[in-house]
Amino acid sequence: MNQESCIAILAPGLLGGSLALAIQETLPKATLHVWARRAEALDEVRARVPRAICTTDIATAVGGATLAILCMPVPHMRAAAQQIASVPVSSQLIVTDVGSVKGSVMTGVAPLLAEQGISFIGSHPMAGSHATGMAAARADLFEKAACLLTPEENTPATALGRLRAFWTALGCRVLEMSPAEHDRAVARISHLPHAMAVLTTLAALAPDPAVLACSAGGFRDTTRVAAGDPAMWTGILRDNRTEVTAALRDAASGLSRLLEMLDQPDDTALLQFLTRAKSLRDLLPPPGTSAPEIRPNSIE
Amino acid sequence: MNQESCIAILAPGLLGGSLALAIQETLPKATLHVWARRAEALDEVRARVPRAICTTDIATAVGGATLAILCMPVPHMRAAAQQIASVPVSSQLIVTDVGSVKGSVMTGVAPLLAEQGISFIGSHPMAGSHATGMAAARADLFEKAACLLTPEENTPATALGRLRAFWTALGCRVLEMSPAEHDRAVARISHLPHAMAVLTTLAALAPDPAVLACSAGGFRDTTRVAAGDPAMWTGILRDNRTEVTAALRDAASGLSRLLEMLDQPDDTALLQFLTRAKSLRDLLPPPGTSAPEIRPNSIE
Repeated sequence: MNQESCIAILAPGLLGGSLALAIQETLPKATLHVWARRAEALDEVRARVPRAICTTDIATAVGGATLAILCMPVPHMRAAAQQIASVPVSSQLIVTDVGSVKGSVMTGVAPLLAEQGISFIGSHPMAGSHATGMAAARADLFEKAACLLTPEENTPATALGRLRAFWTALGCRVLEMSPAEHDRAVARISHLPHAMAVLTTLAALAPDPAVLACSAGGFRDTTRVAAGDPAMWTGILRDNRTEVTAALRDAASGLSRLLEMLDQPDDTALLQFLTRAKSLRDLLPPPGTSAPEIRPNSIE
Repeated sequence: MNQESCIAILAPGLLGGSLALAIQETLPKATLHVWARRAEALDEVRARVPRAICTTDIATAVGGATLAILCMPVPHMRAAAQQIASVPVSSQLIVTDVGSVKGSVMTGVAPLLAEQGISFIGSHPMAGSHATGMAAARADLFEKAACLLTPEENTPATALGRLRAFWTALGCRVLEMSPAEHDRAVARISHLPHAMAVLTTLAALAPDPAVLACSAGGFRDTTRVAAGDPAMWTGILRDNRTEVTAALRDAASGLSRLLEMLDQPDDTALLQFLTRAKSLRDLLPPPGTSAPEIRPNSIE
């Protein structure tokens, strides 16, 4: 059961704004603070989340909070953590984030807070959109989404339990893994697909965008995420480049094999290749059904 | 305005079945014949398309027809065309298809019919699904879809006009281009995205399918078409391998550049790369809005 009495959302973009909306609907007893660097960014929060106490002052935002959620892009999290570490906070405060890469957060952000005795545990709700900002925020964004928590060996069990309860209350399926396991898994399931959508878009349209007149649902879906925010994705791909590069090299090797099969041509090999991909893709249950029964421990 | 008095659908799979349903709803005055090789395949047609006259005899199916539509996989079209060429047909008969590759159809199928004075004009409605068969058929599958017609220099204008009217009556946006232009355009906008979805699925899941527990909408959409029928796609990629290979080599070259940017790492180049992809992807209007204003002549 969620125990947080005061939750601070830092940076109300798509994820932060959706969190504020979800908390407003789902956790009616918790006090809700929303911080933004620019006062204008709070106007839409006030309109859509009347319960939120809005501020541009980090001390006000985290003062009294039991949970503070960093929702800014990963490169800006360090500055926010420095500010949190320099103001008075509750002894109960847990800081988490919603960033897509955990290695860089654990080395760049967590130690700044640990020096002040503040617990940091990484969170990564696997929810989002190619759209950005509070305007695209939705109260149900996290429902049925996987949320990956990345505790370390010295993470207090009570803090981890509270964070698990918070995300569960918002409707997430919570999985736990180390920061390194996280970065390896999301490189494959999220960062690689993003990079491939970008490559598909460029190879499909760069020679002549007029082919768009012939497009159908396949092109639309396969490339949807390539419309995502380039600055945000530059940060993600760069921060997780070791794992992303490994995944992309596997894709490059598959691409070479596919080109060989077509050059031959080798119908038997091609059929096997496509059949193998289909059998893997068919492991994903249809939308709206429950998640695949695969335990997080098996992610290695 | 549609002038076809009798339409024969050959092979009621996803596309043929959807055509039968659409004709039943949209063209109430036309007689509808549906042919299948196996009698069992006609049971569901009888249930869902009561207006259809169902037969396993090609002579019965095309006898009296003014339009016959080959809806079987491309490799089976030649045999069907041979049978049509050997039975009595109306002097008004136009034969078309719904295949995804046109070069091989124009060289392998069209001449068999031309010898008997029967007009063949290729059609490619850009509609489909990763699902297959009559069970997945939908009356509205063709609504707002692009339908690419591939006339040749000697195609009679009246026949082309009738075929255009037929697809327009089903709700398609009709575009005309040569078979070679068609194969080049769909290699980029359809066959390349399919191949990339296959490569993404394999690189994401082959090392450890357990990462599926962390998946979200990005992976789902980016890889959806990889669940398509492997046999059908083997045929498509193989038949259009010259153009598909050219598109895949562009993707391979983009992938090499991306790996270099990540190896450096070069944030500026990476941001430009992602921004270029986004600006191209943003040319596609959101679902439900009208098609991009790009004339077919500009597809080169």
